[in-house]
Amino acid sequence: MNLVLLDPRQTASEIWSISAKRQLEHLRTHVDVQVGDTLKVGVREGKRYLTQIVNVSEQQIQLKALHEEAVPAKLPVTLIVALPRPKVLRRLIMDSVTLGVEKIILLHSYRVDKSYWQTPFLQQLSHYVDLGLEQAGDTIAPQIQLHKRFKPFVEDVLPTLITADRPAFVAHPYVTEAMPVAIDHPCIVIIGPEGGFIPYEVDLLIKNGCQAVSLGNRIIRTETVIPYVFGRLFTL
Amino acid sequence: MNLVLLDPRQTASEIWSISAKRQLEHLRTHVDVQVGDTLKVGVREGKRYLTQIVNVSEQQIQLKALHEEAVPAKLPVTLIVALPRPKVLRRLIMDSVTLGVEKIILLHSYRVDKSYWQTPFLQQLSHYVDLGLEQAGDTIAPQIQLHKRFKPFVEDVLPTLITADRPAFVAHPYVTEAMPVAIDHPCIVIIGPEGGFIPYEVDLLIKNGCQAVSLGNRIIRTETVIPYVFGRLFTL
Repeated sequence: MNLVLLDPRQTASEIWSISAKRQLEHLRTHVDVQVGDTLKVGVREGKRYLTQIVNVSEQQIQLKALHEEAVPAKLPVTLIVALPRPKVLRRLIMDSVTLGVEKIILLHSYRVDKSYWQTPFLQQLSHYVDLGLEQAGDTIAPQIQLHKRFKPFVEDVLPTLITADRPAFVAHPYVTEAMPVAIDHPCIVIIGPEGGFIPYEVDLLIKNGCQAVSLGNRIIRTETVIPYVFGRLFTL
Repeated sequence: MNLVLLDPRQTASEIWSISAKRQLEHLRTHVDVQVGDTLKVGVREGKRYLTQIVNVSEQQIQLKALHEEAVPAKLPVTLIVALPRPKVLRRLIMDSVTLGVEKIILLHSYRVDKSYWQTPFLQQLSHYVDLGLEQAGDTIAPQIQLHKRFKPFVEDVLPTLITADRPAFVAHPYVTEAMPVAIDHPCIVIIGPEGGFIPYEVDLLIKNGCQAVSLGNRIIRTETVIPYVFGRLFTL
């Protein structure tokens, strides 16, 4: 936690207060906060501040804003990813948020186990978004959408997202064209499930405007390939 | 598992056999192997083959080589990383191996909890190396070294690793120079612990030949920053 995320209503008066159990526990155990210490605080969907702690009690930590700080910029990227298994999903959401992805679309695909759509984690995505924001020092949650049908999404929704200024790249091992490097402009990145998209799916993606690009001949796990791709595409 | 890693002695005769419980279970549960199927097999520290299954029994799976395949190239990088907590260590080793890191050095640092050096995972690194190789389709394990004393390592060992053709970059949030992009030549990457290196450590690294470079103003977890950095530095 490199920033404490508060709701706007917690920062309405001059003295702000942290009262969420998770945040209090972290601040007590890992940071050992004391009156007078400074603390980075973000207002959900708002600004970010350096604050100073004015009171520490069992139930809450009270603070006042010292000055505003810059909220880190987002990566201009929409990440479309085949829904992974629940354990991977949590990490994928946290890491994508930490890295600054603007929009995340979780998509069904032939090799996605249907049971993955039943995981309770899908009801708790906002919790993992919070963890990702607090890790990064960010305050703005990405949009997250779920699409449980591959074909209607790829044929009807995806073409409305792709523009000349916002190309879509699908990572695919069996093509010669490499994923571009340091493009630093908006784009859509599409990552398949464990085992990859089936040929029908790759063909449908290409037919609907995506470029299939290779990431070399190592097979990298979904949760690892996401930071790898963003490190490649964006130069901060 | 995108390749089954065997010891050279398992491939000495014309018919090879897989008998390790972990590999048998994976092949039965996730791949449902049958006689006649092809299977990618790597010989530890050796070549990689496409093979065909000739016999499946309770105790073993037998196969014969069809033809040799290319082993993926390594990234020409030495990764020096402050020893993370045990859970992160496993992932870090697996991911670094999957991504093709040539050499990994686990280093002590002020913010590394001394108890981390007692974790049983440090005795099982070769297991996580195997998992990383089998994920990537690689056969060649990286070198792994442990250095429990920061100062002697940085003053005496690190300078012998840095050359004009192999610069060392330490990721550090408070510098203006950005981590380079797409250098595609040998280098050393140094990643600090959770909370970062302390100023004394960063100063000692710089004094001993490292360049402090920034990765932007988002704070990224160790296990996420590693693929992010390699995606940035290398273009396959």
